[in-house]
Amino acid sequence: MTGLIEVFGHGGDVETAAARFGGNAADFLDFSANINPLGPPREVLEALEQGLHTVLRYPDPGHRALKMLLSDRLGLTPDYISVGNGAAESMALILLGLAPRRVGTVEPGFSEYSALSRQFGAEVHHVRGREELDWRAEPKDIENLMERVDLLFLGQPNNPNGVQYPLEVLQQLARKAEITGTILVIDEAFIDFIPESQRQSLAPRLNEYPQVIIIRSMTKFYAIPGLRLGYAMGRPELITAMTEKQVTWSVNGLALIAGEACLRSGESFEQETLTLVSHERERLTAGLEGYGCNVTRGEANFILAALPEPWTATSMQAALGERGILIRSCAMYPRLGERHVRFAVKDAEANGRLLETLRNVIGLDEITELEEGGKSDGTAIL
Amino acid sequence: MTGLIEVFGHGGDVETAAARFGGNAADFLDFSANINPLGPPREVLEALEQGLHTVLRYPDPGHRALKMLLSDRLGLTPDYISVGNGAAESMALILLGLAPRRVGTVEPGFSEYSALSRQFGAEVHHVRGREELDWRAEPKDIENLMERVDLLFLGQPNNPNGVQYPLEVLQQLARKAEITGTILVIDEAFIDFIPESQRQSLAPRLNEYPQVIIIRSMTKFYAIPGLRLGYAMGRPELITAMTEKQVTWSVNGLALIAGEACLRSGESFEQETLTLVSHERERLTAGLEGYGCNVTRGEANFILAALPEPWTATSMQAALGERGILIRSCAMYPRLGERHVRFAVKDAEANGRLLETLRNVIGLDEITELEEGGKSDGTAIL
Repeated sequence: MTGLIEVFGHGGDVETAAARFGGNAADFLDFSANINPLGPPREVLEALEQGLHTVLRYPDPGHRALKMLLSDRLGLTPDYISVGNGAAESMALILLGLAPRRVGTVEPGFSEYSALSRQFGAEVHHVRGREELDWRAEPKDIENLMERVDLLFLGQPNNPNGVQYPLEVLQQLARKAEITGTILVIDEAFIDFIPESQRQSLAPRLNEYPQVIIIRSMTKFYAIPGLRLGYAMGRPELITAMTEKQVTWSVNGLALIAGEACLRSGESFEQETLTLVSHERERLTAGLEGYGCNVTRGEANFILAALPEPWTATSMQAALGERGILIRSCAMYPRLGERHVRFAVKDAEANGRLLETLRNVIGLDEITELEEGGKSDGTAIL
Repeated sequence: MTGLIEVFGHGGDVETAAARFGGNAADFLDFSANINPLGPPREVLEALEQGLHTVLRYPDPGHRALKMLLSDRLGLTPDYISVGNGAAESMALILLGLAPRRVGTVEPGFSEYSALSRQFGAEVHHVRGREELDWRAEPKDIENLMERVDLLFLGQPNNPNGVQYPLEVLQQLARKAEITGTILVIDEAFIDFIPESQRQSLAPRLNEYPQVIIIRSMTKFYAIPGLRLGYAMGRPELITAMTEKQVTWSVNGLALIAGEACLRSGESFEQETLTLVSHERERLTAGLEGYGCNVTRGEANFILAALPEPWTATSMQAALGERGILIRSCAMYPRLGERHVRFAVKDAEANGRLLETLRNVIGLDEITELEEGGKSDGTAIL
């Protein structure tokens, strides 16, 4: 991993980037973190401004106001819900509370599934996604893995490839989980970026799946990763086991205020986000393919792409980093190769700058000039 | 514990109080949480206002800027420091990272020492503080306990009684820890409220005590408990063991910004706090003693008191709660009785209101009238 900026194993680490490439951390155009390009809803920033003075009180250790709003939104009683200091804490609490000895993952997948599992003493077993299935695993392979593990993590949509499993597959896995006694943890951290009609989720009928825990993040869609907020849904026995391991006040007071404001924010923010992400994802995909990238067709707010030769994730990260743009190397993901990178879908201006910079870096201008006799104006395929 | 408001085992739970006594959570005068009555330094609120927009970035998972400032302030290299999501997370990380099988505590003491230890699978053994030592334990009793435990928590000053152990005792315990192999965790969450010349701390020579970890809170002195921020100091092997159990991004971005601003804030805030707390603690102590309370002479920003008969913590909490004032019952602290309560030292106005309300509640006006022939103006002993 020498030369990569993922020293903490994740994207969004602008401090490391600034240390490596120079400049101010805040000035980087960050395609390595998958955050809503619209930024936080106006109501959320207002609620934070008005609520700043509350930092001098302890947060509610029972997260009661937020839990009531989530309960209404999700159609679940509050005992089905556990609020976390980011989705990452929810994952940790599942591992601490249920103490699985063997954990299963599908690779490629979010690196925290195996990192946290090992951190809390579990053995990790995995099955491999298949390139021809856009890096999904065969459902049969996942079922076989479930026979060997106490708990299985599944991303829906999965990170870094952005694809969903169909609802029927999830139902089949949930039934299998009852037979094998496996806890099936479905990580829906990015599902809000998929239009509701296209979401494949067990959430609306969660009470029919006693072995399923669903994790959601509020920091990605509502663009508040600095505040940390996530939650988990599952039957009360599982939620209680999690809560018993939670450190008092682990969810800070401003995160709770922001979360309440998010859930009260209108549908227009949601609609605007979905429209923007869908449109810009298509545009970025077309652009990247035009530059010779092999793009995985996903539904999320990020894009997995294999770079054209001779580019590697490392050389491209360096080339773009020197130009003030951060991307996520996926070279360390099991199953992916040294050419894989991930791009967040950002707003039109940022995506335009990425495509233009990529064009220059890859040297397409020269190619285009050769092919088209120099008629390219540098934006033709943007 | 029926009738008490400590349903989460702590003070500062204004939501539970509002549910029980009516009114708005924010309107209670809260003597149950030990927060600097000055509120956050102006620089901190300004930094938060200016930094609000950073919530759309991930926090630095390495806490690098804050760690550098702490390193300067403490005279320790950064590898001696672990930043936590509140001092509570630092405690949890010690327990997770070092996995002691047996933990020792001195009772009465902060309830999280034993709660977290049990939460993470340790057996808890304790020694008893002695009333004649202001609820300190005999050093010999602590040393004997160390022979039986892998890790020992000690509050300095201790909560709820607010007293310190002399430096010589700490040194003696630290040496004993090397013999028994016990990790000695000294919780200095409230030590900033004691003037520097009177602080009894191993921190300035921490590298001489390889078995000692010191925990500090930044949320109490700087009045930002809603944000969650604390840190631990110890030799790098111990710090690494803690960090390995920390969930990525557990410390939120605004807490980091606030922490940096706290460490940059001037000495005047510190001096003003120390003067206020010292003066108001004496005033509250005199008032409470005048009302027949048995007050423990401590050095912190809170006061432990045994109420005069027939008052109990429960009846007084109810009587004050109905008048919009919250206090901490200490009836559930091992070693203390049903008459013990804890009062935070707040500002002059709030303390005045507390004393006046107590006077009315205890019925001192009537007593005074009888004794003085009705000349009391209701403020005479305030």
